[in-house]
Amino acid sequence: MAFLEATLTSLPLLRSTSYLNTSTVITLCVFFSLLCACIVIGHLLEESRWANESITALFLGLSSGVVVLLVTKFCNTELLKFSENLFFLYLLPPIIFNAGFQVKKKQFFKNFTTILLFGVIGTVVSFCFISFGAFFLLRKIGLILKMQDYLAIGAIFSATDSVCTLQVLSQDETPLLYSIVFGEGVVNDATSIVLYNSVQSIDFSSISATTALNLLGTFLYLFLTSTVLGISVGLLSAFTIKTLYFGRHSTDREVALMMLMAYLSYMIAELLSLSGILTIFFCGIVMSHYTWHNVTESSRITTKHAFATISFIAETFIFVYVGMDALDITKWKTSNAGVGTSIAISSTFLALVLVGRAAFVFPISNIKNCIKTRESTKIEFQSQFVIWWAGLLRGAVTIALCYYQFGGESESTQECAAVITSTIIVVLFSNMVFGPITKPLIQAVQLRLSKPLISESTENAEDFRFLLLESGGPSDQGNNQPARRSRLSLLISHPTSTVHYYWRKFDDNYMRPIFGGRSFVPFVPVSPSESNRARDVAPAPAPDN
Amino acid sequence: MAFLEATLTSLPLLRSTSYLNTSTVITLCVFFSLLCACIVIGHLLEESRWANESITALFLGLSSGVVVLLVTKFCNTELLKFSENLFFLYLLPPIIFNAGFQVKKKQFFKNFTTILLFGVIGTVVSFCFISFGAFFLLRKIGLILKMQDYLAIGAIFSATDSVCTLQVLSQDETPLLYSIVFGEGVVNDATSIVLYNSVQSIDFSSISATTALNLLGTFLYLFLTSTVLGISVGLLSAFTIKTLYFGRHSTDREVALMMLMAYLSYMIAELLSLSGILTIFFCGIVMSHYTWHNVTESSRITTKHAFATISFIAETFIFVYVGMDALDITKWKTSNAGVGTSIAISSTFLALVLVGRAAFVFPISNIKNCIKTRESTKIEFQSQFVIWWAGLLRGAVTIALCYYQFGGESESTQECAAVITSTIIVVLFSNMVFGPITKPLIQAVQLRLSKPLISESTENAEDFRFLLLESGGPSDQGNNQPARRSRLSLLISHPTSTVHYYWRKFDDNYMRPIFGGRSFVPFVPVSPSESNRARDVAPAPAPDN
Repeated sequence: MAFLEATLTSLPLLRSTSYLNTSTVITLCVFFSLLCACIVIGHLLEESRWANESITALFLGLSSGVVVLLVTKFCNTELLKFSENLFFLYLLPPIIFNAGFQVKKKQFFKNFTTILLFGVIGTVVSFCFISFGAFFLLRKIGLILKMQDYLAIGAIFSATDSVCTLQVLSQDETPLLYSIVFGEGVVNDATSIVLYNSVQSIDFSSISATTALNLLGTFLYLFLTSTVLGISVGLLSAFTIKTLYFGRHSTDREVALMMLMAYLSYMIAELLSLSGILTIFFCGIVMSHYTWHNVTESSRITTKHAFATISFIAETFIFVYVGMDALDITKWKTSNAGVGTSIAISSTFLALVLVGRAAFVFPISNIKNCIKTRESTKIEFQSQFVIWWAGLLRGAVTIALCYYQFGGESESTQECAAVITSTIIVVLFSNMVFGPITKPLIQAVQLRLSKPLISESTENAEDFRFLLLESGGPSDQGNNQPARRSRLSLLISHPTSTVHYYWRKFDDNYMRPIFGGRSFVPFVPVSPSESNRARDVAPAPAPDN
Repeated sequence: MAFLEATLTSLPLLRSTSYLNTSTVITLCVFFSLLCACIVIGHLLEESRWANESITALFLGLSSGVVVLLVTKFCNTELLKFSENLFFLYLLPPIIFNAGFQVKKKQFFKNFTTILLFGVIGTVVSFCFISFGAFFLLRKIGLILKMQDYLAIGAIFSATDSVCTLQVLSQDETPLLYSIVFGEGVVNDATSIVLYNSVQSIDFSSISATTALNLLGTFLYLFLTSTVLGISVGLLSAFTIKTLYFGRHSTDREVALMMLMAYLSYMIAELLSLSGILTIFFCGIVMSHYTWHNVTESSRITTKHAFATISFIAETFIFVYVGMDALDITKWKTSNAGVGTSIAISSTFLALVLVGRAAFVFPISNIKNCIKTRESTKIEFQSQFVIWWAGLLRGAVTIALCYYQFGGESESTQECAAVITSTIIVVLFSNMVFGPITKPLIQAVQLRLSKPLISESTENAEDFRFLLLESGGPSDQGNNQPARRSRLSLLISHPTSTVHYYWRKFDDNYMRPIFGGRSFVPFVPVSPSESNRARDVAPAPAPDN
């Protein structure tokens, strides 16, 4: 390298060769090298109970932040700045889309009411608790903010980070917990947006009874329109691919169209000021239910792994980014708070997050347990504990929202900078301390439980309705024909005509003939332009579970 | 939509909800919608002889440019600006990498000397011709530029656009032409960079005999170091994946590492002021030769199609972008040239490009034909014509280089704006007129040829050496065991100990045991974390052709 550089400078023709901005090239080089290092180290640490990829990424980010600081002699720290635009435009959408695309639909819809309860009521409770707590406690520390800022802190810190949750919980090992905590994270995002925006728009001089009603109306509007938009785009992609590519498939076009339309759904939602995250999540679910079955086998493998890979890169990138951003020296300089004050503010935030989450997880779980009579769907205390714990992680979403509120022009004020630095401390602490404990904790809790959290074997007739929801998306594997037959006979012996049964009938009779889906795509010979290998690898369609 | 917007504005809580810049969101929405439209329309026009995806994209870009102009009332045209950074950082690398990854290595290395002749000597001839032509002709039209600008025009217009070539020539139908024209495009880029930079650094007051020597040295340095860097990164990726993931494959990590390292090679090359395009091209070749064979079957399918898809999206995006950029009103306003002058300048450029290319394609081909004695490898006149014609297309590379030279602060001067607008006219004309003619032209030429351009059956012993180069990359399909056996017996009967034979021996004995590659990866059971479906679809390794 040194030799190359020496040679380089000796050749006069090569000065300023690149068309590109050097600092951009350096930034990209650093980030891409770090990502490669994260993947390799993460792989080597795979067996470890305590470490995982996100913590590796955070550590690497922190270390390289130190290196950058030393190299630039504490001056040029542009490399370390966190950009909300980059995060919300390019990093978050693929992660949430992939979550929807790979989510086990059965578990998600089975726990839909629980998810809504936690995501909506829980977030509001947490928001109120953290806002009031911040209002009373921060004053005592000596941090005087505007009323709106306290409420914004409530909204920011009540947003569970779904990215972190995806990293510490396993969909296969703890499906119930995963679907509740992750589903809560997605719904909770919509709730946080409404809360956050209502905070910005509320006129504190004239709070009336209609404010709460208005808030409720807005939430319902936001939730429904975002969902409908996501479903519509998903169905449009299924219809387009089924109609147009019928008989002459082209893998590249199919994959490109799926990628582009998924991203387009997010962008349209943001353009209409809806919750892009909810939209792209439901778009992912619909695409895995219909579109995924209309494409060639090689497209299926490609989309399944390509989406997972892109999401994986985005997640790792976020953690590296947050780690590096923690060392952006300008923020710490502006903050000017002593070590004692910083620790006091951070501890306050952390305590509020801990208690604020406990204040809704345990009550809601117990209310739900009282209503539900069957033993198998009750949320055990150990599970409640894990739900509480897993939702404590705060990550990139919190940082991005915090920058949006307290960064920008107002970053110069001492109080705002103190809030930002404390938020970074909370995020780092929750990831570095809570994160590593989560895996062993879940294992310990599972050992202590005599039976699985919700064992498939104890599911009774009610749950068979949910089995009908499934139709073999990219996340569904295993199981075989006999199981399907027994399901059919069970349906006949338990003719519970619920909404799910009707949905399945509707899906089979009206939706699938139009939009495609498993076993509703007629056999088409692969076009000659398609490679031989793609044809060779085509197995039977994925069976449902 | 109108209903949604009406509802939206009636809800006071939803004002300024998005964390994102509205103009960015609108831009992304427009571009992603256009890309989707391009894919759908391109698919519908697939059977057409005259249209192809690039022309569709150009037309859609132009049409939406008109719409944007009408909507913004000829004022806000930020949406239409072409960004060289975006092009060189994110759009070009995946296209060139995919070209290297999917290139038929046999054809490429077989024609390596021809490619070098066209790419280096040809480009220099073309550069001299266009520079001198511009110097004499533009003066007559009344466009007075600096000496360096004339030389820059020569460098800019002698850069064949490899992106366009990939769109109009088919690797499967015309392998010889494809490899020559595309290979030339890649080498030619390196030549253009050196020429372009030498133009910037030459002190016109003291041109000595060493200038040419210096130029030659720089070119050799650039070519060799870029190639070595690309090969090194490719080998590193192969070694890493082979060593680390041995026995426990993880598809997402593998695919992510391949993507990241490929991009990293481009960035490092740009950082060292080398030719990033050459580097990433050779990185792609090495990755398809070694790395691709070290990963799981699902990773192979995913990388093959994901890289092709990303490249496809980037290509389409470039054409939409160029189409929209053509309607950036500020450039046309600044140019201030009359219709007559604009047409005169554009025609001059076009004529220079036509004659400049003819000035090296026909002589070099004929010199090569004189040296080569065998009938089968001679370049027929019809083929020469196609090579000449296919390289006439000028695209995004030309526009990006042109902006770099004449844009920026100097864009305000009338002359520079006139050069930019004329360049856009040349690019549009060459794509809209030369592009559609190319496909029918090649078909006509092929019909007139009584035998294929280079028929596989007429290949004699010399060519069998090249067969040994091949080792079943992602682009290689078909053929089977018997062919391999006959090749082996042919090797025994024709023991031509050339460099290729030794390379193959070296590859088998030293490279593949270290870096992996076809049939040198021991069988490893798929790890339990890998999905069942991935295991089901694993066929035998791709045979070579």
